[in-house]
Amino acid sequence: MSGPAGTPAIDGARLLGRIRRLGTVGALPGGGVCRLALGDADRAGRDLLVRWMEELGLAVSVDAIGNIWGIRAGREDGPPVMLGSHIDSVATGGLYDGALGVLAGLEVCAALDDAGRVTRRPLAVAAFTNEEGARFAPDMMGSGVHQGALDLEEMLAVVGIDGAVLGAELDRIGYRGAVPVRSLTPAAFLELHVEQGPVLEREGLRIGAVTGVQGISWTEFTLHGQSNHAGTTPMAMRRDAGCAAARIALEARAIADDLGPPQVATVGVTELSPGLVNVVPERAKLTVDLRNTDDAVLKAAEARLMAAAEAHAAAEGCRLESRRLARFAPVEFDAALVARVEAAAAARGLPARRMPSGAGHDAQMFAPNCPTAMIFVPSAGGISHNIAEHTGADDLVAGAGVLLDVALELLEAAE
Amino acid sequence: MSGPAGTPAIDGARLLGRIRRLGTVGALPGGGVCRLALGDADRAGRDLLVRWMEELGLAVSVDAIGNIWGIRAGREDGPPVMLGSHIDSVATGGLYDGALGVLAGLEVCAALDDAGRVTRRPLAVAAFTNEEGARFAPDMMGSGVHQGALDLEEMLAVVGIDGAVLGAELDRIGYRGAVPVRSLTPAAFLELHVEQGPVLEREGLRIGAVTGVQGISWTEFTLHGQSNHAGTTPMAMRRDAGCAAARIALEARAIADDLGPPQVATVGVTELSPGLVNVVPERAKLTVDLRNTDDAVLKAAEARLMAAAEAHAAAEGCRLESRRLARFAPVEFDAALVARVEAAAAARGLPARRMPSGAGHDAQMFAPNCPTAMIFVPSAGGISHNIAEHTGADDLVAGAGVLLDVALELLEAAE
Repeated sequence: MSGPAGTPAIDGARLLGRIRRLGTVGALPGGGVCRLALGDADRAGRDLLVRWMEELGLAVSVDAIGNIWGIRAGREDGPPVMLGSHIDSVATGGLYDGALGVLAGLEVCAALDDAGRVTRRPLAVAAFTNEEGARFAPDMMGSGVHQGALDLEEMLAVVGIDGAVLGAELDRIGYRGAVPVRSLTPAAFLELHVEQGPVLEREGLRIGAVTGVQGISWTEFTLHGQSNHAGTTPMAMRRDAGCAAARIALEARAIADDLGPPQVATVGVTELSPGLVNVVPERAKLTVDLRNTDDAVLKAAEARLMAAAEAHAAAEGCRLESRRLARFAPVEFDAALVARVEAAAAARGLPARRMPSGAGHDAQMFAPNCPTAMIFVPSAGGISHNIAEHTGADDLVAGAGVLLDVALELLEAAE
Repeated sequence: MSGPAGTPAIDGARLLGRIRRLGTVGALPGGGVCRLALGDADRAGRDLLVRWMEELGLAVSVDAIGNIWGIRAGREDGPPVMLGSHIDSVATGGLYDGALGVLAGLEVCAALDDAGRVTRRPLAVAAFTNEEGARFAPDMMGSGVHQGALDLEEMLAVVGIDGAVLGAELDRIGYRGAVPVRSLTPAAFLELHVEQGPVLEREGLRIGAVTGVQGISWTEFTLHGQSNHAGTTPMAMRRDAGCAAARIALEARAIADDLGPPQVATVGVTELSPGLVNVVPERAKLTVDLRNTDDAVLKAAEARLMAAAEAHAAAEGCRLESRRLARFAPVEFDAALVARVEAAAAARGLPARRMPSGAGHDAQMFAPNCPTAMIFVPSAGGISHNIAEHTGADDLVAGAGVLLDVALELLEAAE
C-alpha cells in the first residue's frame, strides 16, 4: 500500500522482513522464540534493535532498568509521541507478541523518511524491559519503572526463576543504561499489539480499538505439611501439602467459572517437595493468576481465593504462606485517542470494534501520565504465549497502517 | 542383655554403634540421611558394610544387580538362613529404615562368634539394591531381581529421576558384581524392620509379627493440553493440563477416603510445563501410589482411578498417557514362621501383635520361594521417610533379640 508522493506509507515487505529477522533470535525448533528477559537471546535481540535504530538515524537511549528508545527529531522540541512495546518473550513465545509494536514503530520512522517528512513533534520508538514477567516477576517491569509505578532499586534486586538477580543480569548483558528512569513522559503513547485472544478472529474483524486493560492479580501460595511414608501413614493422619495445593488450584478454577467472563484464573506453577512417588509431600508451591476488567469483582475473587486457601490449608493441617507477586488495577485508555484509532480504521475500510485487553501491556503504565491507547490485530485461534501464535501478514500491515495514521495526527497536532 | 556363657546374646552397644556409624554416611543437616540408590553416599555405605562383613569373617558376594551378602559357614552345607534388608534411603530418610535389618543381621553373626557357636546351617546377611525406588523405579528392585520377579536386563536399563541409567551407575560405583542373579534361594528369610507406621506405638506394643505386605500400585499420568495466555483465553476455550492433573490428584484422595483403611493413596509428584505464572500449562505429570492388603479392593481402586483420569482428561480436552511404574500383589508370609516370631517375642516378655505391613519390603520377594517372615519394632509417631524417623534404643535391641532367637531356631532346625 504505497501512497501518493509525500504521503507516508507502510512498506509491508520491510516490516515483515524485520519481524522475521528478529524471529530468528532465540528461535525454537518447530517455530516461535524463547527470549526470556535479560537472557542471551534477549541481549541479541536488543543488539539487533539498536542497530536498526541507528541505521534509521534515531538517537538511542538506554535507561537504568534497560529500557531502550530511539528518538526521531521533530520541527519543534518538547515531549515526543512514543510508539512502543517489548521484545522479550515467554519461554515458548511467538514472533509477534511485543515485537510487532516495536518494529511497526521503526516502520513508521522509515515511512516518514521515505516521504521526506519532518514532523512537528519528535517521535520515539521504545522497547521496554521484561514485559512478560516470565523469568522475573512482576511483568510490565521496564515500563512500570519508566513511569514510576515500580521502584527501580526493588526491581534491580528481584531474583528470577533461575536464581539470577535482575540487576546483575542487566550488567551481564550490557544493558544497564546511564539514563535515569522517570526522565521521559511522552506527549502521547501508542502500542500496536496482537490481541492474544480469539475475539477479533471470531467476529471477522481486522482492528481492535483497545479501551483499557483488565486488572491482574498474581499470588504465590506455599503450603507446609509433613512428609511421610506413602504406605504406612493412615489417610486420617496425613498433612499432605500437595493435596491442599490441588484443592486451592481447583478453587481458582471454580472462582472463574462462578464469576463468569471476563473473570479468568490460571494456576501456571505447581511444585511438590520432596517430589518422590512414595513420599507424602511436605511442601507445595503454586501460583494463581486472576484477571478482571472490574476491580471490585477482581477484589472479590482475590478475597474468595485467600479464604479458600486458608480453609484448605487448615483442613489438611498445613501452614499457609502467601506472597503477592503482582497486582495491577484495571486501566482505562484515553477516550479521544481510542476514538482516533476507531476513526483511522474506518478511514482505511478496516472492520473494527472497541474491546478491553485481557493481557497486561506496557501501555497501561503510561495511561495515568499521558494520553494512551492500543491497537489490536487478530490472533489466529486466539493462541498466544505458544509457538503456534500467528497473525496474518495483511493484518500485521493493516495494524501498522492504523498506527501510522494515528501517530501522524498526534505528531502534527497543536498543543 | 548378656546371656549365660555359650548362649548368644545381642550386644546393644555394638548394634547401636554400627547404626550410628552408618548414619554418618550421607548424613543430612538436622538429622537423617540421603543415600539414594547407587549414588555416592550409597557407595560409601556399601563400602563400610563390606568392611564390617569382612571383619566378621563372612564370605562376601556381590551379584549382577549389586546385591551384597556375606555368608557365615555352618556345620553342614546347603542353603543358608538369610537375614537381610537394604541400606539405600529416600532423599530425606531416617537412620533405621533398612539399615536396622542389615546391621542386626551382622550383630547376630557377632553374637554367635562371641558364644563360639557354629550353627548347623550357614547364615547369610544381605543388603539389597534400591529397595526404596526413590531414584530408580520400581522399588524392591534388587530383591526382585534376586528372586526372579524382575528381569535383570530391564532393570539395568532403568533411567532414574536424574537421568542416570541404573547399569551405568552400578559400574560407576563399582558394585556390578560377578555372581549371577537368582543363584541363591535361602532355606528361610527373615527381615527386621521399623514399622514406619503408628500402630505399635499407639497400642503400647514392642514387637510386630508381620503377617504379610499390602499390595502396591504405582501409576504415572501425563496430560497433554494446550499452553495459552493466562489473560486472554476464555475459561471455556482452555485445555489446562494442570487443572486435569489436580482433579486426578483429588480423585486419588477420594478413592482412599471412600474405601477406608487400609486403602491409602498418595500423589507424590506433580509437575507442570512450561511452569510459568501467566501461561496455561500445556503438560502435567503426576504419580499416584495406591496400596491395599486386599488385591480385589486394590484392583477396584486402580480401575476407578483410571476411569476418573480418562474422564477428567477428556473433560479438559487433554490427551492422557498412563504408565505403570510398579505393581506388587499383596503378599502372605509363612504362617509357621510368623508364629515363631510371636512365640519368641512372648518368651522375651515383649508385648506383640500380628499385623500387615503398609510398606513394601525385600522380604516380599522371598515369600513365594522360601519360608519368610518379618519382625517390626515401633516407629515414634509413625513418622517415616522423614529425617525425624526414630525408634527407641530398647526397641531396636529387643527386635534384634527376637531376630536372633528365631534365626537360631532356623539355623539349628533339621530339614
